[in-house]
Amino acid sequence: MDAKPVLTPELARRIVGWRRDFHRRPETGWTEFWTTARLAGILGDMGLAPRLGAEILDKSSRMGLPSEDVLSRVLVEAARPLGDLAGARAEFLSRMDGATGLCVDLAPDKAPGVVLRCDIDALPVRESRKPSHRPVREGFRSLREGAMHACGHDGHMAMALGAVQLVLDQIAQGRAKLTRSVRLLFQPAEEGVRGALSLVPLVRGWPCLLAGHIGLALPETGAFAAGVSGAFATAKFNVAFRGREAHAAQAPEEGADALKGACEAVLALHALPRHSRGEGRVCVGRLEGGSGRNVVPGFARFEAEVRGRPQEVCDFLFARAKAAVEGIALANGLDASVELAGQAGSAESDGELSARLARIAEGLSWDGRPVFGRVLEQARVSVSEDACTLMREVQQGGGHASYMLFGSDLAAGHHAPDFDFDEAVLAKGALMLASAVLDLAGSRDSRL
Amino acid sequence: MDAKPVLTPELARRIVGWRRDFHRRPETGWTEFWTTARLAGILGDMGLAPRLGAEILDKSSRMGLPSEDVLSRVLVEAARPLGDLAGARAEFLSRMDGATGLCVDLAPDKAPGVVLRCDIDALPVRESRKPSHRPVREGFRSLREGAMHACGHDGHMAMALGAVQLVLDQIAQGRAKLTRSVRLLFQPAEEGVRGALSLVPLVRGWPCLLAGHIGLALPETGAFAAGVSGAFATAKFNVAFRGREAHAAQAPEEGADALKGACEAVLALHALPRHSRGEGRVCVGRLEGGSGRNVVPGFARFEAEVRGRPQEVCDFLFARAKAAVEGIALANGLDASVELAGQAGSAESDGELSARLARIAEGLSWDGRPVFGRVLEQARVSVSEDACTLMREVQQGGGHASYMLFGSDLAAGHHAPDFDFDEAVLAKGALMLASAVLDLAGSRDSRL
Amino acid sequence: MDAKPVLTPELARRIVGWRRDFHRRPETGWTEFWTTARLAGILGDMGLAPRLGAEILDKSSRMGLPSEDVLSRVLVEAARPLGDLAGARAEFLSRMDGATGLCVDLAPDKAPGVVLRCDIDALPVRESRKPSHRPVREGFRSLREGAMHACGHDGHMAMALGAVQLVLDQIAQGRAKLTRSVRLLFQPAEEGVRGALSLVPLVRGWPCLLAGHIGLALPETGAFAAGVSGAFATAKFNVAFRGREAHAAQAPEEGADALKGACEAVLALHALPRHSRGEGRVCVGRLEGGSGRNVVPGFARFEAEVRGRPQEVCDFLFARAKAAVEGIALANGLDASVELAGQAGSAESDGELSARLARIAEGLSWDGRPVFGRVLEQARVSVSEDACTLMREVQQGGGHASYMLFGSDLAAGHHAPDFDFDEAVLAKGALMLASAVLDLAGSRDSRL
Amino acid sequence: MDAKPVLTPELARRIVGWRRDFHRRPETGWTEFWTTARLAGILGDMGLAPRLGAEILDKSSRMGLPSEDVLSRVLVEAARPLGDLAGARAEFLSRMDGATGLCVDLAPDKAPGVVLRCDIDALPVRESRKPSHRPVREGFRSLREGAMHACGHDGHMAMALGAVQLVLDQIAQGRAKLTRSVRLLFQPAEEGVRGALSLVPLVRGWPCLLAGHIGLALPETGAFAAGVSGAFATAKFNVAFRGREAHAAQAPEEGADALKGACEAVLALHALPRHSRGEGRVCVGRLEGGSGRNVVPGFARFEAEVRGRPQEVCDFLFARAKAAVEGIALANGLDASVELAGQAGSAESDGELSARLARIAEGLSWDGRPVFGRVLEQARVSVSEDACTLMREVQQGGGHASYMLFGSDLAAGHHAPDFDFDEAVLAKGALMLASAVLDLAGSRDSRL
Repeated sequence: MDAKPVLTPELARRIVGWRRDFHRRPETGWTEFWTTARLAGILGDMGLAPRLGAEILDKSSRMGLPSEDVLSRVLVEAARPLGDLAGARAEFLSRMDGATGLCVDLAPDKAPGVVLRCDIDALPVRESRKPSHRPVREGFRSLREGAMHACGHDGHMAMALGAVQLVLDQIAQGRAKLTRSVRLLFQPAEEGVRGALSLVPLVRGWPCLLAGHIGLALPETGAFAAGVSGAFATAKFNVAFRGREAHAAQAPEEGADALKGACEAVLALHALPRHSRGEGRVCVGRLEGGSGRNVVPGFARFEAEVRGRPQEVCDFLFARAKAAVEGIALANGLDASVELAGQAGSAESDGELSARLARIAEGLSWDGRPVFGRVLEQARVSVSEDACTLMREVQQGGGHASYMLFGSDLAAGHHAPDFDFDEAVLAKGALMLASAVLDLAGSRDSRL
Repeated sequence: MDAKPVLTPELARRIVGWRRDFHRRPETGWTEFWTTARLAGILGDMGLAPRLGAEILDKSSRMGLPSEDVLSRVLVEAARPLGDLAGARAEFLSRMDGATGLCVDLAPDKAPGVVLRCDIDALPVRESRKPSHRPVREGFRSLREGAMHACGHDGHMAMALGAVQLVLDQIAQGRAKLTRSVRLLFQPAEEGVRGALSLVPLVRGWPCLLAGHIGLALPETGAFAAGVSGAFATAKFNVAFRGREAHAAQAPEEGADALKGACEAVLALHALPRHSRGEGRVCVGRLEGGSGRNVVPGFARFEAEVRGRPQEVCDFLFARAKAAVEGIALANGLDASVELAGQAGSAESDGELSARLARIAEGLSWDGRPVFGRVLEQARVSVSEDACTLMREVQQGGGHASYMLFGSDLAAGHHAPDFDFDEAVLAKGALMLASAVLDLAGSRDSRL
Repeated sequence: MDAKPVLTPELARRIVGWRRDFHRRPETGWTEFWTTARLAGILGDMGLAPRLGAEILDKSSRMGLPSEDVLSRVLVEAARPLGDLAGARAEFLSRMDGATGLCVDLAPDKAPGVVLRCDIDALPVRESRKPSHRPVREGFRSLREGAMHACGHDGHMAMALGAVQLVLDQIAQGRAKLTRSVRLLFQPAEEGVRGALSLVPLVRGWPCLLAGHIGLALPETGAFAAGVSGAFATAKFNVAFRGREAHAAQAPEEGADALKGACEAVLALHALPRHSRGEGRVCVGRLEGGSGRNVVPGFARFEAEVRGRPQEVCDFLFARAKAAVEGIALANGLDASVELAGQAGSAESDGELSARLARIAEGLSWDGRPVFGRVLEQARVSVSEDACTLMREVQQGGGHASYMLFGSDLAAGHHAPDFDFDEAVLAKGALMLASAVLDLAGSRDSRL
Repeated sequence: MDAKPVLTPELARRIVGWRRDFHRRPETGWTEFWTTARLAGILGDMGLAPRLGAEILDKSSRMGLPSEDVLSRVLVEAARPLGDLAGARAEFLSRMDGATGLCVDLAPDKAPGVVLRCDIDALPVRESRKPSHRPVREGFRSLREGAMHACGHDGHMAMALGAVQLVLDQIAQGRAKLTRSVRLLFQPAEEGVRGALSLVPLVRGWPCLLAGHIGLALPETGAFAAGVSGAFATAKFNVAFRGREAHAAQAPEEGADALKGACEAVLALHALPRHSRGEGRVCVGRLEGGSGRNVVPGFARFEAEVRGRPQEVCDFLFARAKAAVEGIALANGLDASVELAGQAGSAESDGELSARLARIAEGLSWDGRPVFGRVLEQARVSVSEDACTLMREVQQGGGHASYMLFGSDLAAGHHAPDFDFDEAVLAKGALMLASAVLDLAGSRDSRL
């Protein structure tokens, strides 16, 4: 019962195919209608019974939601074919009820074992048209102009699907069995750290959670880190100032200049104090305000984020940022709002779990060769990750969580129009995930 | 030879008709292709020989020009019919050669007499759809969504055309003659004070210039001011900062934050010193910057203006604004540019000329009633006016200039979506302009 | 009864002598103990019965008072001789009861006629020691190091005393008589516009008030302006921020940085909007904050002023400044206070009264030559004047007020260490003031 | 030859006595004339030949020097008795030649062994007068009002002198010998990290350097840390802006507002970017500017510091701060200067050396009891230390350095007026330093 999962060339090809299908129909956060339906179709074909969208989450708990217009438009589009890709099945769209995301359990009658969490959204990036860009060269460039899987979530989904298939195959062949249940969680809206919060109930009380990422911090195929430390807690927020327009020459004193107030707030945010307990970050990444050159601006809004490690640094910065906005509004006779648009906690991978995963990784081979040439127990990252919200939930409930890095050569950095990873990572990742699931949920180890 | 011009009910109706046609096809600054062609058609029908667009101005002297894309798009559209309004004649468009505006002379063989200057552009305002808005109620709302004659230039054109017709009628009937030539100047791009500079050569050396506005500072039909004082000199300018993008969490120190620099510049502009020689104004009316929440912004740009009366206050503010932008760029490691997008001088109406115009206005009657119930020699305004650039040119050449205000009840303020004036002002204005032209250019007064 | 006052060479010498005595013992605002006593001595010698200090004002109504320490120190010093100048008489100091200023009435039994207001305080300026500086050359440099009559108030007092003597002489010689009473008001603390408010009850209901200044706006001996326009209303205020100190490296997050808040407030004050109804001014002239380089500053305070003409512009700026301070305190977690330290209204001289004064000035001669070579009815100034508070009180009660300018050649500008005026102005001013008083309070003109 | 140093009760009393003498005559950085002379006297009495002031350092290399006035005044004062403390000997003052600090070598003919570095300056703090403050209660409060040993350097000197005596005693008694030389370095101006740079030549090429502090990070008597990590690199700097004064109402446009510029710079410094390689700090701890309320400020200056760990974060912040000041000066038409007033590098104690020192500390006993109840190899601190400059010099030359913490109960935090440590630490420290010196310089260990 200890045999390793075996990846056939045929399954390796299917994994790559899945990835390329997702790559061609990218959908940004909370609009992953076609994507969710496609996942449901594949998992259904494997004999599983996934739950979709509104079946798994409270729609009102979604942060940073696009406008109703955008949601409706993409929903309608998802039902239609695009190129040779069929539209989403009406049954799936109906069950989703406007919300995206998917959850499916293996051995659901068993006690909770392992959650495998995977993100599914794309980015609002216009994909490169350069002939040297492999998706162009090999014909799987995004068919939805202005959206792109530029962060590898297409690969994450393919790897997870491959892992499910491997686990099912092992069980079917009597080479493994699950003593605990395994939950596959396909999370929407990871970008902007908006989606995890609404899925917290789905991991509450579970003893173990795994998540991971392609390429991050390890830009070389064959490298693997079994856990990470240093992820920043973060709060993403939108600030809006509303004042009173007035003619800039005839009555400047009647105006309340929302843009001036916003500029003061931008500087105040950057000037927030440093913190003795750790590192922080402040960014105001986007601002617009005012309606015309000769009108005292009546509105201004900006998109900002703060980060901190540990958590308290982030909390400190966010609290001070809100106070700064409120005070500056008062100083300028403006109304102001601060709306949370995303949030992730800081979470460290558990050392014991990471060590166990590292041992598994070191033991993996395929075609007689080691799957990973270089295995780290922990790597240090400087990003924020929506998965941390789920990891903290599991950890605070007494469980363990780890965030893995699947190294890959990269054509360009994450989020760039030329981003592309080495598809060799997909098979490696699927093998690792399947092995980990079988180890953790097939084990009699009393810790799980 | 002293008989007053007589306005027939039929001409009064034509004037209103012209106004409503212009109102239905509004075109913003430098894109007044259909408008120019329509003016040319009407004036040609009166037997005059207007010169158009590139025939009268140096295309490279136009400030604050829209992009080539916009110019091309509107040009193509102008040639097409819209509702029951025929497209611009190809011959006219061809003569314009991409530039707008029109000039036509009466008695061109005589020595220069009077320039009558009129503005022709509309605003980027979406016209109200309220049933109570008269253009809606009476069916002449803008047919070009997002553009609107919300500053009365449609009325200015109609008044000027009516005045030309009245003058021609008087001459034709032998009731008047011109001893000096009269130049009608239909100026593009008044909004943003962008157009007058390119027309300066057309008024150079002329002894007299008249311009005016509907509704401004006198919101009551029947009031008239023969001159104004207090117009602000102004400089309109666009500021752009370019820095270096960087990941807000992974490498904030590698960024050069253009948005932060722009915010500092906005505050620095507002904080420019007051001036002992007069009043100033500063407005940053529009700003946008940055590409996304978690990216150190690599660009930011804003639209600003300064004003001053007298001129030196404006010059002071503009010089200091440029220095502030330059210094702040250096402080933040950014590149910056300041591009002039419009400019108008400060000009006072000449007292002697205003007094003469006031006497003319007081003497006007129509249907046995005085045309103007209330006549002022001078009114004080707090706006900037592109006409000032032309007035200063005439005044600096030893001539006289006056800017008149034609009072009108208003439904809402200038530039508002509900702006609407009382069309009764059109006949009054046409009579006043015709009388002034006949008095000044028909006179043997040695001053002209 | 229409004879002009006659200035004897002996009185001219006494006037200069008075001025030089005052010049040698300058006392800054609210500390004019010796000065008040000296005035009381001279006026008592003329047979008048002046009231002093606490006899004429409510001590609690004094704005911008120095500390008790300073008041006590100067009071003690005033009682002592300094050089050949005797100390203040104990009787006078006792009657003052800690407050300065003096009021004396001529013909007190008559109905109120004219108030003649004169300021008496010096400046915290170290007087020049250059040999070319006339007070040095002629031996009347300030004996109180760090204080100096650098604004001509010493001359104002000498002129006013001379005028009183001239009026008394005329009456004594039977050449004039008073039909209404005349009130001489010697006001403390004009600098910083702190003193007039507490004297308002002494001018309430009076029909006429005269005040004036040497050298201002007319830097040439022999010039005279009978009235002024354009004086700024002003508010002087002190802002203090209190935060929380913290070690800059070990616990920056525990601090509340009062200096940072103050810097934001300084910029916010400069960036207050311009006003369509007139001109404004903003100055933060002095700031200090923080206790040491490596400590998050726990306090900061600054001295600021706003001005406006008309009054509403000043009121607008002050209201907005207070709001800005309050909001910025909130934004930074600070306590803040705004304390009014001085205030003057905007007041225009009455045209009718100025015209009458101008006619008097034009008629004055001395030794067969005109006293003033150049007389203006009105001059424009750009300063704030504490007298305006008293002028407004009289004007709002239906009376008339005018502020006169006595032209003088100047060695350097007002408030400079080298400031010095031409003493020839003193006799001219005394003659003018006496003539005005006799004309206005000796007149049967029903307006007074 | 391995016998531990023995501390007699008599020496313990002398150590406390030295400390209290230093405490009573505190001298701030670069003015330690009496202090240096007193050290020279004590060491001379021990038979050593110290070098003083200008004999050991280049006077021009001193950073953050007080004014000549201050230096002269304190020098004169140092020569006089104060209370029962004799004045500095003329011979010593003459040899110092205006500079402070002292260096003395044991076994100077041997190869370089260990530098023991000790700081000697006091702080500009007014010592508490509370009866509960032990220096008040026991009669050794500062005799120099406004100066105080509030950071324990008085104790450092006493401990070092005690250690020298212990070493000399051991050698004299034949219980130890030095195989390498030992250099005692008494450094001036540690506060403000101003003094170490000028002493760098005195440690260049030495294989080992020891320094330390009382109370820091270990506020409990009996605790000891053999090394530290985390010290911030820092740059202390003074910024001065010079503009042009002008009357705030009459000619604001003629001013160049240095205070406004300084406020912009303060905010710009706080708003400098965070850095991905580590933590930074920014503090503007003191600012003053402007001469009076109604004058556009012609000058402003502030004291600031930046810190970073590792070094590159500090360097980044300082470079950006200088650019910000330069750009803001340009933006406002000001002159600006940035003057370095202190600087310390970041340095980590060497792990091997710390381990060796920890073993020594663990082995120490006195009167049969362990000297230290709690010994750490490394503690983490968040301060900057001038000693780091010397440590880096030694480390970069291939040697080892460690900074030790001598725990002590504290009455109040460092730099506070109530600061007081537990004098029991002095004997413990002297024993530890003597033992370390004997171990390191008496050793045949080839590493030294």
